[in-house]
Amino acid sequence: MVPRYARPEMTAIWSAENRFRIWFEIEAHATDALAELGTVPKSAAKALWDWWATNPAIDVAAIDAIEAVTKHDVIAFLTWVAENVGDEARFMHQGMTSSDVLDTCLAVQLAQAADILLADLDALLEAIKRRAYEHKLTPTIGRSHGIHAEPVTFGLKLAEAYAEFSRCKLRLQAARAEIATCAISGAVGTFANIDPRVEAHVAAKLGLAIEPVSTQVIPRDRHAMFFAVLGVIASSIERLSVEVRHLQRTEVLEAEEYFSPGQKGSSAMPHKRNPILTENLTGLARVVRSAVTPAMENVALWHERDISHSSVERFIGPDATITLDFALGRLTGVVDKLLVYPERMQKNLDRMGGLVHSQRVLLALTQAGASREESYVLVQRNAMKVWESDGQLSLLELLKGDADVTAKLSADELTALFDLGYHLKHVDTIFDRVFGAA
Amino acid sequence: MVPRYARPEMTAIWSAENRFRIWFEIEAHATDALAELGTVPKSAAKALWDWWATNPAIDVAAIDAIEAVTKHDVIAFLTWVAENVGDEARFMHQGMTSSDVLDTCLAVQLAQAADILLADLDALLEAIKRRAYEHKLTPTIGRSHGIHAEPVTFGLKLAEAYAEFSRCKLRLQAARAEIATCAISGAVGTFANIDPRVEAHVAAKLGLAIEPVSTQVIPRDRHAMFFAVLGVIASSIERLSVEVRHLQRTEVLEAEEYFSPGQKGSSAMPHKRNPILTENLTGLARVVRSAVTPAMENVALWHERDISHSSVERFIGPDATITLDFALGRLTGVVDKLLVYPERMQKNLDRMGGLVHSQRVLLALTQAGASREESYVLVQRNAMKVWESDGQLSLLELLKGDADVTAKLSADELTALFDLGYHLKHVDTIFDRVFGAA
Amino acid sequence: MVPRYARPEMTAIWSAENRFRIWFEIEAHATDALAELGTVPKSAAKALWDWWATNPAIDVAAIDAIEAVTKHDVIAFLTWVAENVGDEARFMHQGMTSSDVLDTCLAVQLAQAADILLADLDALLEAIKRRAYEHKLTPTIGRSHGIHAEPVTFGLKLAEAYAEFSRCKLRLQAARAEIATCAISGAVGTFANIDPRVEAHVAAKLGLAIEPVSTQVIPRDRHAMFFAVLGVIASSIERLSVEVRHLQRTEVLEAEEYFSPGQKGSSAMPHKRNPILTENLTGLARVVRSAVTPAMENVALWHERDISHSSVERFIGPDATITLDFALGRLTGVVDKLLVYPERMQKNLDRMGGLVHSQRVLLALTQAGASREESYVLVQRNAMKVWESDGQLSLLELLKGDADVTAKLSADELTALFDLGYHLKHVDTIFDRVFGAA
Amino acid sequence: MVPRYARPEMTAIWSAENRFRIWFEIEAHATDALAELGTVPKSAAKALWDWWATNPAIDVAAIDAIEAVTKHDVIAFLTWVAENVGDEARFMHQGMTSSDVLDTCLAVQLAQAADILLADLDALLEAIKRRAYEHKLTPTIGRSHGIHAEPVTFGLKLAEAYAEFSRCKLRLQAARAEIATCAISGAVGTFANIDPRVEAHVAAKLGLAIEPVSTQVIPRDRHAMFFAVLGVIASSIERLSVEVRHLQRTEVLEAEEYFSPGQKGSSAMPHKRNPILTENLTGLARVVRSAVTPAMENVALWHERDISHSSVERFIGPDATITLDFALGRLTGVVDKLLVYPERMQKNLDRMGGLVHSQRVLLALTQAGASREESYVLVQRNAMKVWESDGQLSLLELLKGDADVTAKLSADELTALFDLGYHLKHVDTIFDRVFGAA
Repeated sequence: MVPRYARPEMTAIWSAENRFRIWFEIEAHATDALAELGTVPKSAAKALWDWWATNPAIDVAAIDAIEAVTKHDVIAFLTWVAENVGDEARFMHQGMTSSDVLDTCLAVQLAQAADILLADLDALLEAIKRRAYEHKLTPTIGRSHGIHAEPVTFGLKLAEAYAEFSRCKLRLQAARAEIATCAISGAVGTFANIDPRVEAHVAAKLGLAIEPVSTQVIPRDRHAMFFAVLGVIASSIERLSVEVRHLQRTEVLEAEEYFSPGQKGSSAMPHKRNPILTENLTGLARVVRSAVTPAMENVALWHERDISHSSVERFIGPDATITLDFALGRLTGVVDKLLVYPERMQKNLDRMGGLVHSQRVLLALTQAGASREESYVLVQRNAMKVWESDGQLSLLELLKGDADVTAKLSADELTALFDLGYHLKHVDTIFDRVFGAA
Repeated sequence: MVPRYARPEMTAIWSAENRFRIWFEIEAHATDALAELGTVPKSAAKALWDWWATNPAIDVAAIDAIEAVTKHDVIAFLTWVAENVGDEARFMHQGMTSSDVLDTCLAVQLAQAADILLADLDALLEAIKRRAYEHKLTPTIGRSHGIHAEPVTFGLKLAEAYAEFSRCKLRLQAARAEIATCAISGAVGTFANIDPRVEAHVAAKLGLAIEPVSTQVIPRDRHAMFFAVLGVIASSIERLSVEVRHLQRTEVLEAEEYFSPGQKGSSAMPHKRNPILTENLTGLARVVRSAVTPAMENVALWHERDISHSSVERFIGPDATITLDFALGRLTGVVDKLLVYPERMQKNLDRMGGLVHSQRVLLALTQAGASREESYVLVQRNAMKVWESDGQLSLLELLKGDADVTAKLSADELTALFDLGYHLKHVDTIFDRVFGAA
Repeated sequence: MVPRYARPEMTAIWSAENRFRIWFEIEAHATDALAELGTVPKSAAKALWDWWATNPAIDVAAIDAIEAVTKHDVIAFLTWVAENVGDEARFMHQGMTSSDVLDTCLAVQLAQAADILLADLDALLEAIKRRAYEHKLTPTIGRSHGIHAEPVTFGLKLAEAYAEFSRCKLRLQAARAEIATCAISGAVGTFANIDPRVEAHVAAKLGLAIEPVSTQVIPRDRHAMFFAVLGVIASSIERLSVEVRHLQRTEVLEAEEYFSPGQKGSSAMPHKRNPILTENLTGLARVVRSAVTPAMENVALWHERDISHSSVERFIGPDATITLDFALGRLTGVVDKLLVYPERMQKNLDRMGGLVHSQRVLLALTQAGASREESYVLVQRNAMKVWESDGQLSLLELLKGDADVTAKLSADELTALFDLGYHLKHVDTIFDRVFGAA
Repeated sequence: MVPRYARPEMTAIWSAENRFRIWFEIEAHATDALAELGTVPKSAAKALWDWWATNPAIDVAAIDAIEAVTKHDVIAFLTWVAENVGDEARFMHQGMTSSDVLDTCLAVQLAQAADILLADLDALLEAIKRRAYEHKLTPTIGRSHGIHAEPVTFGLKLAEAYAEFSRCKLRLQAARAEIATCAISGAVGTFANIDPRVEAHVAAKLGLAIEPVSTQVIPRDRHAMFFAVLGVIASSIERLSVEVRHLQRTEVLEAEEYFSPGQKGSSAMPHKRNPILTENLTGLARVVRSAVTPAMENVALWHERDISHSSVERFIGPDATITLDFALGRLTGVVDKLLVYPERMQKNLDRMGGLVHSQRVLLALTQAGASREESYVLVQRNAMKVWESDGQLSLLELLKGDADVTAKLSADELTALFDLGYHLKHVDTIFDRVFGAA
């Protein structure tokens, strides 16, 4: 976790205090269930909750000090609780194994993290939607291969982003459902020393599903899937960021990240306004994505479990979620405050001398009876002249002066083909598909 | 694609012939829709289908030869079709762009591939289930950290695998649904030159959903998700393979890959029976997983599209699906024919002198009034002696001889604690969770 | 391997025939050494070489047929050789293990591949150098963050690429040296059944170093390093390719990939000239890079070896080397034939109204006695006006009209600060560093 | 960075204080050179060093507070220095750009990190060497595929590790040399505003090489190579760790991680001694390796630079080096204190009834005139009986009772073939190769 790329709410999920609070709740709910089953005295559960009701501070340093001796984190925690609760605490953790606590806790943390990320996605989607409708009909050039193609609108670009992040949301909802399971099944998952009803009780209390079959640990294919989804979301962040970076290039300048009055772009070149937020997001996407492979390497634990996954998760658990949360928040800000320059979009759209209408002419020639190959030649020979003039010549004028063309299409017909509205007639259709019909 | 790790059905999906067949169907269905809309003559569509009804051979070499000149694959294909169909073919591809064909074709191929993989998963699940029930109550030692822990059954190990691959199946079904979209939206996705109803028609005919908003291409987050799921499945294959490899180790030998009579394990050491299939699967898992990162790097295409994804997909499309299909098939064979040695499992289970029952004793001591810490000490001091004897001493006998222990638990009570059935009492519960109640 | 991204010379290295030829040479050289040591009759070695001198065709199908029965590739090969050579062949492979042959063969193949790649790099470096000197003093705008910064020359851009690929060459030479080792040490690397002098002899004959200590296999950290270097080279290819793609953008258009007369850029838009080669290279870089992680995952083989690396290497060995060879060749062609537009470079350089000289003014103001902060303010307030005019205003003229500025610097002094030569005065120095002093 | 996997010396390299100290030294040395060239007054340089000689505390909070306003870290730092040094500080940073400071600083940090890692490798190599000589002739079974093969010694296993980490050291030395460059070349690397001699001076003072050609930034292929080497080292750590984990398995138990008296292996099973250190190292290897791909993705910065690499490096710079340092230290401790059980090794070696000698018998039969195929059959039919008896039968006895065998080899000859010394006769040779002749 790098503090400059972290927000407090998500960071708090990964604090020692939050972890220990979750541990306590797991243990105490389990003790409730054990008491209900008659395995331990009801007074034991009551003692735990009575102490908890005092809202005790979690003394992380004290627990760490105990761990330094026992070299075992859960035992250290239980010892600390026992020091506070007293003799009744000995019934706690009855029949459970450390991983019951650790893995269920991780499930809670990842579910909490997913909830924040889902809210982040909602905020991002809202910002995108607002700007999409704002620029629904703002014409701009569509580019393939970085080369001018045909007109689109800036709203369509954002509609695409909206659809993409909507898919990301669905994926994250599925991944959250997968990860949110509770395992309290004992040393090798057989429930030998603990009744399955304890697991069911704790799961219900924590809003988790039960893990159908565990092997001391919750199987890591669930986590691999979770981090893979984060990696896909990061890749979508990269895509929109790269779009902004392209639009802000000096020669393009169709949009810019918001530039605050006090901000200095460069220590040397005071005129510079750099797309540093989206460049930063491009890098953060690489960081989030780097969690995917180790998460997949974590799946093949030996036999009923080894502990190689644990150190990996201590990194990628916080890093991937905190960084993604920050990145989603930053991207939302970029979209929300993006400076959009419709005039420059129009200027760029016009700069190629009408080449963007070439395909429509091609089709019209075909409709007018020319073969596809012939039409292609007619368009291309005029298009090339415009291209080589760097847009100083007009495709429309050249076509009007090409006798082979005018043999098929009149000047008026040609003029009608150079109509921008032709390209925008289905924007409503697409918006309805993406945002839902009004 | 490496031929030795490829099966014909999946390989055929990626053949040039299959690709061209799909291209034709897309073009011909689109022409139908265009004819219905009055954009092109109905005779054009009829001409295409009439020719197709003759079941013409796809002359890949001829198409390639045309491409060598045009340097454009779709134009080459259209030219070849036109050579065969005649003049009516000029109406084909009206208003479409190459990517409409290419991306929709890729969607069809990935959906076809997913269908095979889903069938593979079904076969694997069936094999696992059969063996799981066969060994539902075959006791074996559960191991954490590679160290003996407590008893499980071999059927439980397989139930875990069944649950894991069942999750893989659900993920793949979701990924298939995501990837199976049709985009026929023209040069930059605006439908400027083609009515959205064409897309809807082709989608329906090919069993695809429409792509809500495309930008010449289908957005690559869909593909990233698809390959990520393949990577997770591969990781689960690795997990089960590593389990078999461990079980086949000389010192463990609880199970073995089937060894055919004519097979030679080593050119030098004729006695060797190596788990080469599961070692191979471990490697193939790495191969499939290696597709995930480039698929994610493909997401951030520039503006409305660049073509950097294309070369990546020419590799990972076939490689990841063909290799995963092969791997699933191979793993199914391994499971199906796995030699399982219950006697050896029992022998291994017994080799630690009863240490596997230590936790139960610990709990019983706690129940009998000892503190958790005291119980721990009592068990550990006896357990350590057994451990150091390499299982020659018996934990039960030592406990019976420890006065501090017998002060809490009688000899009979101790004996009762060393009962294997205690560990297996919830196997039915777990099987019901995994396979569904009878 | 994808045929369209493969060249014959590199592909041939990975053919079955080449592999079997190398196998034979390893076996025959080893037999020579064994004969010299008196372990086998000299007639055995002679028989092998006599047969080899007849330049026998390698009957891959026959060997494959034998393998189908034995399920062991080296035994199949030895059987086939014995069928051809006769009884003397029984002395072949004495004391060796399959991996002695397989791993030493792979070392030869990777060394052969490295030699081709090194030649590729030489050709690329030569092309870059030629174009670098051609455009040594062609002014163009330097960009950071995609935003105009200060002038550079196009030759400097290429000098940077030259330096980068020179480093790549050194890395590949080191990786080649690392990978080119010979191991003939028997079943677990102890030389129990084969004298170390056999290994030394074969190594010398094949131009390899001896592997100091092997464990049936050559340790895979060597291979991991080799593929990591290929991944770095691929990343450098991506960098230069992305540069070309940027330069070819419609709004920039300072350079273009060569566009052959018959080439069609788009089936729909005949005017398009797309940077498809460098986009393709961007994708191929992802492909080559994807070999790095599995190669690293291959390192941790179990004990003296397992065979999980083998399937991985069957993919990444050919794929990474063939694809990188193709990519280097393609990039060399791109550089060699790149269309460079100095006039457009100058036009872009001028389009910001002189903002590129802002830092020099800043420094001059500081030298003239203004504080750094004051100077910054003076420059920025004028620079911002130019920026907002989209380069229609001239920074020089604005500065001349700013009394706070002219209080420090005269009009003539200001004019002198807007001299392009100021930025190019150290180009020779840098060229000397990169290409060596004349 | 995860504190529990971090050591203070390496962590300090990445502290804000260390970074600011390096920044100051770069700036002050540069001011010296500028003063020498007459660009700035010598008093300016003196003022900086005079202040520095007071050993001023680095007020990180103050610098951060300034950055919160300027949103630019280097400007914030310069402002803070100026507040302390006074008016003379305005000559600092003359003609430089932020990246001159940032990238040269990163080079210093990575070189510092490499020095620690090189020392770590030396310590590890020393520990391995000591244990290797200690167990140079301790016989143990060599295993391929996890299956018993032929005898080796435990010292040989360690010699292999020694050779592998020696290679890692050479790679890291090369990577350190590559990364340790100084760039002070101004806004786009042209030295327009700063003389190349400044760069040369600072480089010399900081023990760096000059960067031959930079583009505001030091090219990122250097960093990609650096992190790739860390990834390879991590993979070698994983290999040795996996070896220890295998040796500690209950059924194998040939070695164990040191187990301290107070340590609890499990909260539930007091008898457990788990290889948690090497399992942890297996996970940490995945973490370090995960830096490789983003480092490679950082190479293709846009034009003269973008800043996407920066956020990535804020993670992987500290994470990969700190984690690798910790891992190397931990592995050194594991090797140093490893509990090795020669008796158990011998027991395991004997458990297969002499099958480990099968190849030698095979060769002897061949030498005695049997064909290779015949010999193979003779050995295998007896070997299979031993195998199926789980080592209860003796291969030597069975061979003595096989008339077809004794027709070729006498009982005494057979007995002589079952000699362990035969397998160890070249251990000295291998040790000489790895550790150098005495």
